[in-house]
Amino acid sequence: MSIDLRQFIRLVPDFPKPGIGFRDITPLLANPAALDQAVAQLAEPYRQRNIDIVAAVESRGFIFGAAVARQLQAGFVPIRKPGKLPADTASATYQLEYGTDTIEIHTDAISPGQRVLLVDDLLATGGTMAAACQLVQGLGGKIVAIAFLIELTFLHGRQKLGDHEILTLIADDTE
Amino acid sequence: MSIDLRQFIRLVPDFPKPGIGFRDITPLLANPAALDQAVAQLAEPYRQRNIDIVAAVESRGFIFGAAVARQLQAGFVPIRKPGKLPADTASATYQLEYGTDTIEIHTDAISPGQRVLLVDDLLATGGTMAAACQLVQGLGGKIVAIAFLIELTFLHGRQKLGDHEILTLIADDTE
Repeated sequence: MSIDLRQFIRLVPDFPKPGIGFRDITPLLANPAALDQAVAQLAEPYRQRNIDIVAAVESRGFIFGAAVARQLQAGFVPIRKPGKLPADTASATYQLEYGTDTIEIHTDAISPGQRVLLVDDLLATGGTMAAACQLVQGLGGKIVAIAFLIELTFLHGRQKLGDHEILTLIADDTE
Repeated sequence: MSIDLRQFIRLVPDFPKPGIGFRDITPLLANPAALDQAVAQLAEPYRQRNIDIVAAVESRGFIFGAAVARQLQAGFVPIRKPGKLPADTASATYQLEYGTDTIEIHTDAISPGQRVLLVDDLLATGGTMAAACQLVQGLGGKIVAIAFLIELTFLHGRQKLGDHEILTLIADDTE
């Protein structure tokens, strides 16, 4: 029996600022059956796709990233905020509503030709994930797909992710 | 066959500052067998201990936290930096070498009497984990144990964690 994961997402109005409805995944995480199913469903389409590496962006991406990696018998690569990764890094800077943000990856994290699944909890504007794709491809990784728990479809983040295969478990069109 | 996880920890000298030898777990995470074994070994002693919740502190704690929760058929509770959790929170402030730091938990994350396993990658001075224990107990959670991948034994972080049962997979006494 499959659970409707949508019922475990809590909408918190006006967070982090007025007018924004925040999708809070903590009720889903706290429920053992919902957490288990979310990880299983994020991994399932990629079981026969020879994924070498699951990569995810700090911090919330780490929650599902490592669990999905383990489910696929893949390795996990963390993509982090500047100054957090201790060895040689490559970085990518991307546009925010106001200003820019930067993320980093270890240059030895992915070998050319390795098959990579990117995972995150939320597809919003897509800026962070587009930058993560750039980092993976810059190291020669082949992006097999990008898997999200939730997609805010009204923000059209897919448009920033080119032709990559995208999986979303919950499509949310409520602005 | 069990792998020696120690060989997957990379020592990066002088990070984040001169004189500090940083334990880099990214080679372990990137290796599918090492990642799988680390998660399995962090969970194994608690299989019959009726763990309701695995809790972990942002960001690196999230990597093992959710995977261990899933292995134990428990829920996962994230403890985060201030301003990140959208609903009502409780907070704890703790001492750093210079200054203080604060972490937060959702007040509805744990119900009184729930059995909690805390997980993190590294036990250093123990300050962050002591604050996390305070948050869990403040909500009425019962701490069953605290599990770490690595313990820097020469920093004596255990002394900050009271009488709690502690598991560490790798004891590192090289200052």
